[in-house]
Amino acid sequence: MRFSLSILCVIFTIHLSAQSNNPDIVERLKNNGLESLHSYEMLKNLTSTVGNRLSGSENYEKAVRWGMQTLKDAGCDSVWLEPVMIPHWVRGKSEKAFVWNGKKKEALAVCALGGSIATPKNGIRAEVIEVHSLDEVKKLGVKAEGKIIFYNRPFDKTKFSPFEAYGGAVDQRSRGAIEAAKVGAIGVLARSMTNALDNEPHTGMMQYKDSVTKIPAAAISTVGAEYVSGLLKTGKPVTVELYLECQTLPDVQSSNVIGEIHGAELPHEIILVGGHLDSWDKGVGAHDDGAGIVHSIEALHLIKNLGIRPKRTIRAVLFANEENGLRGAKAYAARVQNKNEKHLAAIESDAGGFAPLGFGVTSDSSKFEKIKTWSPLLEVVGADKIRREGGGADVGQLAPFTSALIGLNPEQQRYFDYHHSNNDTIDKVHPRELELGAIAISILAWLISQEGL
Amino acid sequence: MRFSLSILCVIFTIHLSAQSNNPDIVERLKNNGLESLHSYEMLKNLTSTVGNRLSGSENYEKAVRWGMQTLKDAGCDSVWLEPVMIPHWVRGKSEKAFVWNGKKKEALAVCALGGSIATPKNGIRAEVIEVHSLDEVKKLGVKAEGKIIFYNRPFDKTKFSPFEAYGGAVDQRSRGAIEAAKVGAIGVLARSMTNALDNEPHTGMMQYKDSVTKIPAAAISTVGAEYVSGLLKTGKPVTVELYLECQTLPDVQSSNVIGEIHGAELPHEIILVGGHLDSWDKGVGAHDDGAGIVHSIEALHLIKNLGIRPKRTIRAVLFANEENGLRGAKAYAARVQNKNEKHLAAIESDAGGFAPLGFGVTSDSSKFEKIKTWSPLLEVVGADKIRREGGGADVGQLAPFTSALIGLNPEQQRYFDYHHSNNDTIDKVHPRELELGAIAISILAWLISQEGL
Repeated sequence: MRFSLSILCVIFTIHLSAQSNNPDIVERLKNNGLESLHSYEMLKNLTSTVGNRLSGSENYEKAVRWGMQTLKDAGCDSVWLEPVMIPHWVRGKSEKAFVWNGKKKEALAVCALGGSIATPKNGIRAEVIEVHSLDEVKKLGVKAEGKIIFYNRPFDKTKFSPFEAYGGAVDQRSRGAIEAAKVGAIGVLARSMTNALDNEPHTGMMQYKDSVTKIPAAAISTVGAEYVSGLLKTGKPVTVELYLECQTLPDVQSSNVIGEIHGAELPHEIILVGGHLDSWDKGVGAHDDGAGIVHSIEALHLIKNLGIRPKRTIRAVLFANEENGLRGAKAYAARVQNKNEKHLAAIESDAGGFAPLGFGVTSDSSKFEKIKTWSPLLEVVGADKIRREGGGADVGQLAPFTSALIGLNPEQQRYFDYHHSNNDTIDKVHPRELELGAIAISILAWLISQEGL
Repeated sequence: MRFSLSILCVIFTIHLSAQSNNPDIVERLKNNGLESLHSYEMLKNLTSTVGNRLSGSENYEKAVRWGMQTLKDAGCDSVWLEPVMIPHWVRGKSEKAFVWNGKKKEALAVCALGGSIATPKNGIRAEVIEVHSLDEVKKLGVKAEGKIIFYNRPFDKTKFSPFEAYGGAVDQRSRGAIEAAKVGAIGVLARSMTNALDNEPHTGMMQYKDSVTKIPAAAISTVGAEYVSGLLKTGKPVTVELYLECQTLPDVQSSNVIGEIHGAELPHEIILVGGHLDSWDKGVGAHDDGAGIVHSIEALHLIKNLGIRPKRTIRAVLFANEENGLRGAKAYAARVQNKNEKHLAAIESDAGGFAPLGFGVTSDSSKFEKIKTWSPLLEVVGADKIRREGGGADVGQLAPFTSALIGLNPEQQRYFDYHHSNNDTIDKVHPRELELGAIAISILAWLISQEGL
């Protein structure tokens, strides 16, 4: 193939100008972000005016309105709602548990796991059996009949990554009730999914199986778990009472919230940045995933505020119902397929608002290597570690429709101290760390929009 | 050059065994550390039984005894004190300031800067002039006579690194009194050195010059600084009263505390790991530099606990008087010179107990590149970023006597929120983040001891 000199010159010039502009734009994105700390203002506003926002709740609908308005305020060219039916599980007014220490009845800090059925009105009362794995339950056989199964395998503390430790422990929470019911147990207590030792129970999704009896399941705080375990070590039978009022109501019509900056040259090529707008009904979902929501909005806002327009469209998606159904992400992916929309990359922030360290990238090698070349630009906010494998539960639904799934990787040691519990509040978020995450996403989205992938 | 086959085999085998052992040892250092979280236990103990520990204070001597005992408990082969004369500045019982808002007298949160003289017993009372640089003061000329100079240049928020922002602002604190006195001012208020906006004043060292009149100098909280600045914006003169009772007493005989694990093969080659045992008299010096102290002790303890012996000597030095004199480090360096001791490397931890990200290395290129090859081993605790330039104020004194000065680089966004203030308390330290720093230092010290540098 041969090019005329003039064509080569044009190509070279465009390339040079793109290359030389980016460091300047990156610097300005960083400076404006750190000067304003706008992400934190948004998160304070979301957590104080809306609070937590479980799928199906009135608060979630408030969050939808908040998202619409905040995307508009951020300067999006268009903002719209995408309809989606979402589940509606409610915790009920009261949830409690007691353990009998000899003749003394002591309260335990528990909370229903998401999706659990209620106990009968008068609760359940039974001897507890402590186990450390699903396999151990299977082996209990008839001994489990009429008992409450107490899953107490802690996080593996020796794992550097608490996310890895979570992955190694969460089967107790998610599938514990199924295995316990199979051997005739009447209820489940599961140790909270955290390295922290405190008295806050951490909720999270659990599953039932149609063919297996549904039994109520609750998380118990790590302090409570240690206490019950200590009582069991005496060798005497230990009795627990559990009262849950949770129930699943009919699905509710709701929405993903979407805003975008239109691309100047290739508007039909989309770079998605997103997080989930729903949270559990504990704390205010500041890190999970309020951080991801304001990261996504701020990524667009920072670009808009510079008065620059990306070549390709950058779209923020505030997904509905990540926590207990992924319905928002599934509806979004279905529409992407129907409309045959082209997504160059989908970037998710759902690992908290801590200082960003880099991105995990699921893509072919050439795209991965291209993103790696931007590492020096991402270093201005400390987010230069580009690792293989990344994405998130929401953008994961887009796997068939995009060639790069990307997840923001923040510093991770504190995340599960707060996750799905009353500890997940705004005071655990540092304004600069939060903003740095938004700037990192903004830089990456900008670079993909300019340079392609 | 030619080698016989057998010599080549021996070299190859030694090399292989060293190479293949290290990953296993690194893994065990990590697992044992994260399992025990022993650093945090030590830090809780230091901060609760000793508290803060300013040079010259009784508490500093308590800290010396604590350090001796804790190094012994960590399993050091030998532990000793190294004598050093240290300064003895005391804050006095009371320090306060007021600003007159019209006829209303309002309290300001202030604290004497380290080394400041007292005000007269009845305080000083004068109009304040707000400035943003030492140059601005020089230009005030006679207008400054009899006034209180109020240095109010904030941290540059746009800097990613708060350490860089600190470096760009700290001249106001350290040299502000000299320049103010030169133009006839009678006192100094300096905005606290932090990005945080709160009502805690942050102390720190200030200097006088023999040829210039000494005037009292205090830090004012950032909230107080913003308030006074707001009053000044009305255009009316603003009067401030300042009362300080601080004074400098005669020097005190004190100590560095040193412990070591003897090297099995080259005991006279030393790898130093260190932090400073003194702190300011605000908060309890949990991050600054309690973290560095327990990092250093734990680095040895982890190795000792594995029942392995390093080839070279690994020595922990708890330096006296980093904050207001560096006397400990100077005395240590002088003795290294006198004894002609060989220090292969000196690693300092004095940037807080946050999650470690890597190390800064001041050395020639070959040593730097060698350390970089260990990056995959340091990655097991997230400390794999090896950057040029590093060390610290204490190990910096060893520059003529060692060929590698190394500083631990933890995540840094929160550091100056706490630094030199009542905010620097144990609840700001995360047990796992703290331990990861100790493990990182332990790994690096071990690798240098085995592989040389």
